[in-house]
Amino acid sequence: MPGEFELIARHFTRPVRRAALESAPGAQGVALAKLGGAQRVALENVGGAQHVALGVGDDCALLNVAPGMQLAISCDMLIEGRHFLSTVPPERLGHKALAVNLSDLAACGAEPLAFTLALALPRADDNFLAAFARGLYALADAHDIELVGGDTTAGPLNICITVFGQVPAGQALLRSGARAGDQLWVSGTLGDARLALEAFRGKVSLPGAVFETVRQAMELPQPRVALGRALRGLATSAIDLSDGLLGDMAHVLRHSGVGARVNVDALPRSAALAAIPLPLQHECLLAGGDEYELLFTAPASAHAAVLAAGSAAGVAVHCCGQIEAAPGLRVVDGIGRDVATPWHAFDHFL
Amino acid sequence: MPGEFELIARHFTRPVRRAALESAPGAQGVALAKLGGAQRVALENVGGAQHVALGVGDDCALLNVAPGMQLAISCDMLIEGRHFLSTVPPERLGHKALAVNLSDLAACGAEPLAFTLALALPRADDNFLAAFARGLYALADAHDIELVGGDTTAGPLNICITVFGQVPAGQALLRSGARAGDQLWVSGTLGDARLALEAFRGKVSLPGAVFETVRQAMELPQPRVALGRALRGLATSAIDLSDGLLGDMAHVLRHSGVGARVNVDALPRSAALAAIPLPLQHECLLAGGDEYELLFTAPASAHAAVLAAGSAAGVAVHCCGQIEAAPGLRVVDGIGRDVATPWHAFDHFL
Repeated sequence: MPGEFELIARHFTRPVRRAALESAPGAQGVALAKLGGAQRVALENVGGAQHVALGVGDDCALLNVAPGMQLAISCDMLIEGRHFLSTVPPERLGHKALAVNLSDLAACGAEPLAFTLALALPRADDNFLAAFARGLYALADAHDIELVGGDTTAGPLNICITVFGQVPAGQALLRSGARAGDQLWVSGTLGDARLALEAFRGKVSLPGAVFETVRQAMELPQPRVALGRALRGLATSAIDLSDGLLGDMAHVLRHSGVGARVNVDALPRSAALAAIPLPLQHECLLAGGDEYELLFTAPASAHAAVLAAGSAAGVAVHCCGQIEAAPGLRVVDGIGRDVATPWHAFDHFL
Repeated sequence: MPGEFELIARHFTRPVRRAALESAPGAQGVALAKLGGAQRVALENVGGAQHVALGVGDDCALLNVAPGMQLAISCDMLIEGRHFLSTVPPERLGHKALAVNLSDLAACGAEPLAFTLALALPRADDNFLAAFARGLYALADAHDIELVGGDTTAGPLNICITVFGQVPAGQALLRSGARAGDQLWVSGTLGDARLALEAFRGKVSLPGAVFETVRQAMELPQPRVALGRALRGLATSAIDLSDGLLGDMAHVLRHSGVGARVNVDALPRSAALAAIPLPLQHECLLAGGDEYELLFTAPASAHAAVLAAGSAAGVAVHCCGQIEAAPGLRVVDGIGRDVATPWHAFDHFL
């Protein structure tokens, strides 16, 4: 069985891409493919890869943060049975582990730069690691970011990624900025990931092609990074939907000290979800979780600009409610009738 | 049983210390003790706490990195039975989880700024968390750094910390800078952590007071942050001793493209370790691991300056060998005889 260092070398060491290399001070030269070779990169551009001054292999990675920028940091730990099912293909798991972290950067409007990966594995499984790394790097490449460090160890399967981005100082989208009168928006469609989970659980039966589609929503979420950046200066607050609309709305309302009204009929949903009986459909829409769409608020005067930002980012955005001064969250249907919401936010200890 | 959010609030949310607060843009005000209250800090000083622009509670934390500084990042995952024994008091575990990460910053010569914590726990154990947080924060306070984000989840016990520091651009201590002729140095004493492990394993029997002393070396390692910073511009390479002297030396030699001669009789050791029969004593000194002392190289001309740096940092440093052009690591005794080293570097998958 290969050792820890060999494993890291085989799957998680790559040349730094698209970046001019210079020798590290005192280094005898730079070997790109060598495990932990000091990969010192000249800072020439603003893309993520160009911010990595020193990647995997030393005690620390070194990142350059551009002048006037703040570093945005988020960290998520994924556990089998809690955050993913044992049925997930490892390549999709690699994608998702990074996606849920990038989604946090998206919710702040930050530009991704780099990430670290800590991985506990029951055994050094070469096939698993090759597939996991493939999915991870495909998404990393799509966002032009580098794995800059991490840790591997034997233990119950656990994936912990910390992601780094940058955002102009003072311009990060926060949970705390929603104001009475703001419109409430969501990106993409909601509920498919939860529908897939219910199908895996046997609570609902779906045709094969439909199941594959919603399964993809659960296993291959697309972090809305471009949208988050496009919403800087436009949105008054933002959060990514990981605990379900009601749970994540509650965070925004508490941080902002406001209330809200949500029109459940205005929540965007796939054809698959629209075909499900209403009670479960509402549960998937309102208490789904694991969606990684953005929930954000913006002044009504910015309505057209928000639509344009979504269009520029290639993501549909839907206005689905508004922020109100009165505390609490009121869920109504298209003609203003109250909708029952007998569900809790997803809690990883319940 | 308290929920995830309540747990985070109870143990891992604190007011940002010693820093002027200003309202977040668009915030309705700042509530210090409130879970996830947007804690936006005016950048006024260079201490770690003053670099935190936004702490726990939003999608991302925001850090300010001073102009001309690079961000140093390290990440370690700790698993029961691999990185700590089930017998470790939770308060010491909290200390150690952060200490091993700070040790990586020390090895780079970086100034610690902040850290994230991801924690998987079999159950939401209030007593465990209170003690763990106490140990964690005591060390964080000693280094003037803040917990800025993280994640908690149910699962097999797993602690993943990512730590952030800053270092003047181009001045980080790397593994790759050792040159033939450099002297080899270690800080503190070696081998006590391994001796404690062997005592726990029943391989050696120690008097009670001696056992408590070496146990403390294993459970309460002191990261050599001040020494690392004092060695900037002086040391040509540095690494922290986590895999044992032989294993970590091998990293330095490979990255630097050199060989070395180590005098085992010159390795600093406690009175407790000096009383142990030589074969086990040598194993503890050379293949111990879990020590978090610094191993570093410096030109012979810097000998007095290195001693002065150790003195200024309050840590004894010992010259114990030298770097040679010929590849390989030669371990000898005080009169130049070869010493057998039939041990491997600690590998977390073996």
